[in-house]
Formats: sequence, C-alpha cells, structure tokens
Amino acid sequence: MGVAVNLGKERKASPLDRLADLVTDDLKAANIAIVERMHSPVSLIPQLAGHLIAAGGKRLRPLLTLATTRMCGYEGQRHILLAACVEFIHTATLLHDDVVDDSDLRRGETSANALWGNKPSVLVGDFLFTRSFSVMVEDGDLEVLRILSQATATLAEGEIMQLITANDTETSEDAYMDVIKAKTAALFAAAAELGPVIAARPAAEQKALHDYGMNLGIAFQLIDDVLDFSAQQAALGKAVGDDFREGKITLPIVLAFARGDTTERAFWRRTLEDLEQHDGDIEHAQSLLGRHGALDDTVSRAEHYGALAYEALNIFPESAIKTALLDTVGFCIERAY
Amino acid sequence: MGVAVNLGKERKASPLDRLADLVTDDLKAANIAIVERMHSPVSLIPQLAGHLIAAGGKRLRPLLTLATTRMCGYEGQRHILLAACVEFIHTATLLHDDVVDDSDLRRGETSANALWGNKPSVLVGDFLFTRSFSVMVEDGDLEVLRILSQATATLAEGEIMQLITANDTETSEDAYMDVIKAKTAALFAAAAELGPVIAARPAAEQKALHDYGMNLGIAFQLIDDVLDFSAQQAALGKAVGDDFREGKITLPIVLAFARGDTTERAFWRRTLEDLEQHDGDIEHAQSLLGRHGALDDTVSRAEHYGALAYEALNIFPESAIKTALLDTVGFCIERAY
Repeated sequence: MGVAVNLGKERKASPLDRLADLVTDDLKAANIAIVERMHSPVSLIPQLAGHLIAAGGKRLRPLLTLATTRMCGYEGQRHILLAACVEFIHTATLLHDDVVDDSDLRRGETSANALWGNKPSVLVGDFLFTRSFSVMVEDGDLEVLRILSQATATLAEGEIMQLITANDTETSEDAYMDVIKAKTAALFAAAAELGPVIAARPAAEQKALHDYGMNLGIAFQLIDDVLDFSAQQAALGKAVGDDFREGKITLPIVLAFARGDTTERAFWRRTLEDLEQHDGDIEHAQSLLGRHGALDDTVSRAEHYGALAYEALNIFPESAIKTALLDTVGFCIERAY
Repeated sequence: MGVAVNLGKERKASPLDRLADLVTDDLKAANIAIVERMHSPVSLIPQLAGHLIAAGGKRLRPLLTLATTRMCGYEGQRHILLAACVEFIHTATLLHDDVVDDSDLRRGETSANALWGNKPSVLVGDFLFTRSFSVMVEDGDLEVLRILSQATATLAEGEIMQLITANDTETSEDAYMDVIKAKTAALFAAAAELGPVIAARPAAEQKALHDYGMNLGIAFQLIDDVLDFSAQQAALGKAVGDDFREGKITLPIVLAFARGDTTERAFWRRTLEDLEQHDGDIEHAQSLLGRHGALDDTVSRAEHYGALAYEALNIFPESAIKTALLDTVGFCIERAY
C-alpha cells in the first residue's frame, strides 16, 4: 500500500528531523519571524503565546509550508512569514482547545489556561488569529489569503462539530471523519498547498499537495486518537485517557460502540455521555477496544489515508525533500506502534 | 464646542434611526448578508450567532460603513458585504467578552454563554472571526484587508489590555485611554474609513473618516462607562454596576480614585481589586463618583472627543447623510443624560 513504515529506526533521526534539516535555514528564519510577529507592547501576549510556542511541538504544519515551497523550486522568502502565520493559526486553536477541554497539560508542560486562567487564553488566542491574518495580508497574495482564510473558517467549524459530537456515542464514522477533516486536516492541506502557490506552479501541483496535506492530516489525527488509549502517550506529555475522560468521541470509540453488545453500549453511555467514570473504567475501555480490534482498525484506516498522501506526491520528481515528505507519512503512522 | 446635543428630542426619531433610513435598502441588504454569511451546516453556529445578532443592537458599526460609503458617492454594492464583515467582528468580540466577563445579560437578553455555555461561545466567536476574514478576502481589496485586519488585531490587543488593567486601581487616565482606543474606537475608525476606500476617494477623506470614527468610538465608550453607574442602564438591558461588580476600571473610577482620600482609595481597592463587595457598595461608589464630579468630567471628556469627531467631517460637502453622521455624535453623548 505504498507507505514505508520503518519500524525500529533510530529515535534521533526521525523523518521530521530530516525534513527540518533540509530546510534548516528557513526553519530558523520562521522561528525568528514567529517570535517577532507575536511581539506586542502588551507583555502578557508574548509571555503567554511564547509559553506555548516555545514549548515547541513539532512545528509540523509550518514545516509542511517550508518544505513544499522549496520542493516546488521557489527561491524567495515569502514562505517564511506564511509558515509563521500557519503556526499562529495552529497555536490560537490550541489555546482555545485547552480552554474548551479544560486541559491542564499541553506539550508536556502546564497548559496556558492552567497557568494564566481561561480569560487570557481566550483573548491571546484571538490575538494570534488576528495577527495571523495581518501577516497574510502583509504577504498580499489573494490566492494565499483565500486558502488560509478558508482553512481557518473550516477549522473553527470543525471545532464546533467536535463539541457537538462530544458525549454523543451515536456519532457515525462518517460524522467523525467530517470532524477531523475540518478541525485537523484542513490546516495540514492549506499549509502544504501554499508551497506550489508561492512558487507559481501549475494547479495540478497545488491539488496534489493539498491532497497530500489533507490525507496526512487525517492519518495524523487517527493515530492521535489511538495514542490516547496507548502507553506511548506518557512520552508525548499527555495522560492516557484524556479524550476518554472528556467524553470525546474518537474513531476507536465509534467502532467499539458499533460492534459492542447492550452491556458494552451501556458502559460507553455511562462513561462518555453521562461522564460518570470510576476507577478501572479506562482499563475496561481499553479491553473493549482490544476485544473489537478498534485500535488496530483505526490504525488500518490511518494507513489507508497515509497511502493516499503517499500517492499524491507521485507527480513530483525525486528529491531529498520529496523523500522526507514521504517518510513523514510513515512517521506519523508509526507513532502508534 | 460644535456638538449639537438635542435634549428632549422624540425617542422614535433618533439620529441613528435617521441614518438607518437614509441607507435603508443597504441596511436591509446587509442584514440579509449577515444571516446568509453566518450560515453553516453546523446548526449550532447560526443558532448561537443568530441569537446575538437578531437581538439587534444598534448596528452602529455596519451603519457607519454603509453611510460613509454612500456619503462618498459610491454607487456599487461592495459595502454591503463589508458592513456584514464589520458586524461579524463586533459580534465575535461580544461573544468572547461575555465569556471573559461571565456576563449573563447582553442587549437585554440572556447572553449566549449563559444559554449555551462558555465553550460554544468561544468557538462560535472564532467562527465569526474567521468568517469575517473569508468575507473580506472575497471582497479582494488589499487596502480594505489591511484596514480590517489591523483593526481586529488592535481590538484583540485592547481586550487583553483591558483584562490586565481590570482590578488595577492604579490605572492612569492615559493607560485607560489606550485601552478604549484599541478595544472600541479602532473598529469604529475602520468601519467609517472603509467608505472612502471603497469609493476610491482621496487619502484626506479616508483620514477624516478614520478620525471621525476613532473620536466617535472614544466618546461612545466613555458614555458607556458613565451609564454603568446611571439609572438609564436598565433601559439598555444592562444592570447598573456591571462594570463595578467585575472590578472593571473605567474613567469615572480612575478620576475618583485619583481625587479620593486614603479612606476612599481603600474602599476602591477593597471593592475593585479584592472584589470584596457588600450591600450598599454600589450606592457608596455612586456617591463618591458624584462627590468628585467623576461622571460629569467623564461626560466632558466624551464631549471633547465628540467635538473632534464633529470637526473631522468639515471637509465633506453638506448632505443628508453628513447631517445624520454629525447628529450621531450628539446622540452617542446624549445617552448620558
């Protein structure tokens, strides 16, 4: 199915690291731009935003912009600010996500809302949204503006869809897929699609990188859902069962609920709809997910989307960046193992 | 000082009504555009946003865009969508404001956060922000994009400045003025400035209408601050003392604190910094504000900015819209009486 899952590879040289190495100067410039552009005389803003942005994360989305732009042969500097812009949109969403989810932990650090309270998190999130927009306008390309404004609008819609499906164990697989395409994959798609647009490449390349980003984003989110029930979570600085405790309906749950008997469905309803949870419930949830192969099948679906992402790059000639982008697909899925 | 304050005027024909009458077709079209553009297959979005937008409010900001555009002789339709865009930005801010302030009442109705909870209010606010971007991008004029993206970024910064000065009785008058310029007046300025930009008028007219909007916005906010301590509040659907209960520092407080003795300052610190409030505190606050002329002097300052707004329109030839815009200045101030 085309996805090269390199099990047992050394930790230190992940495909993301290699991708970052291939655009190392751009990434440094983007990091500088991020710090510069989140500056404000209101010092709480860089403090709070900086807490989250400095905590790092993988910079996966801005990396997609930087890498696809260079892969498309662009030699200018426009992609630097746009990568910063993509990171601002992502960070704004994280800030509001943590408020909505009452999360205490983010990227292994105490979350901004836990440190500063919900109010500054809401308002600094707004600031980053609006700043991202100023930065796009500064770039001044209407096609770029269309792509990014559309992606942020879709993202906001997806967050609301997720809020509505939360605690609803009747959520269908289709409805769930709509949520993650909107709340996660749309920004991946936009970030990757910016490359050929900046480089003024043909529409077919823009479409191909849009599809690459979209399918990579879906695979990425599906694996995130699996990880919430797996032991690898601790390594990511997230507690196991965070989604479960919030009553978030993810694909593993959708599958296990559909395949479960009456007693099992009553368990899911009690724990996820009524949020009435006791000691041992997470372990019981894990055993139900295992019994129905719900985690394995979620990984299989992620592999399906990973394969689509992989195929989408076919039209591009071989290059080191293309190889790293392909390996990134495998990397995102491999996290589940 | 140039501001015509028409006391005793009939309630029914306020200058805002006359302004609305002069652009009645545009206002209807803008209201239709607002409903259309807040549509989403996610039904919670139009429900929640519609609750707030349908509750009405004065549509003051979009009216500024519609009126200045027509005053500048524009005959097309671009201003309709941009007026909707301005209302979306304003509504998004209101939604997030009410979350940050824990307000239960907005425009005389139960607030969205009180009805649906904080989470949907945060996310639907995000949706409206992002939808406003999409609408601007659809218009496709980079100068319009620059003005509105700058205004929203300033607005977000102003909200954070307000959060920081909240509960800080040492806030200076200058610091307070910076807050309201950013959080209120910047959007008034942008809304008014769009007219000459759409109508492709000279820079001097753009500057003049920017100044008109900015000074009108400052006067408007100062009077809002006065109203929080006055009997007229009930008529606006706001409880008297809302700002006081939240420990919000407004100009009347800044003035009374600066002019007060040690005992009085201790009172302000207890009620506004420590938020330790008892029965009779609001009445005592009102008596202190009266003793130091803090409300009257805030109205005087509003009249100063009103006069600047009034003067700014000097460069425009006489017209019915210009007259209504001038009268709007008086109307905004007159609310205090």
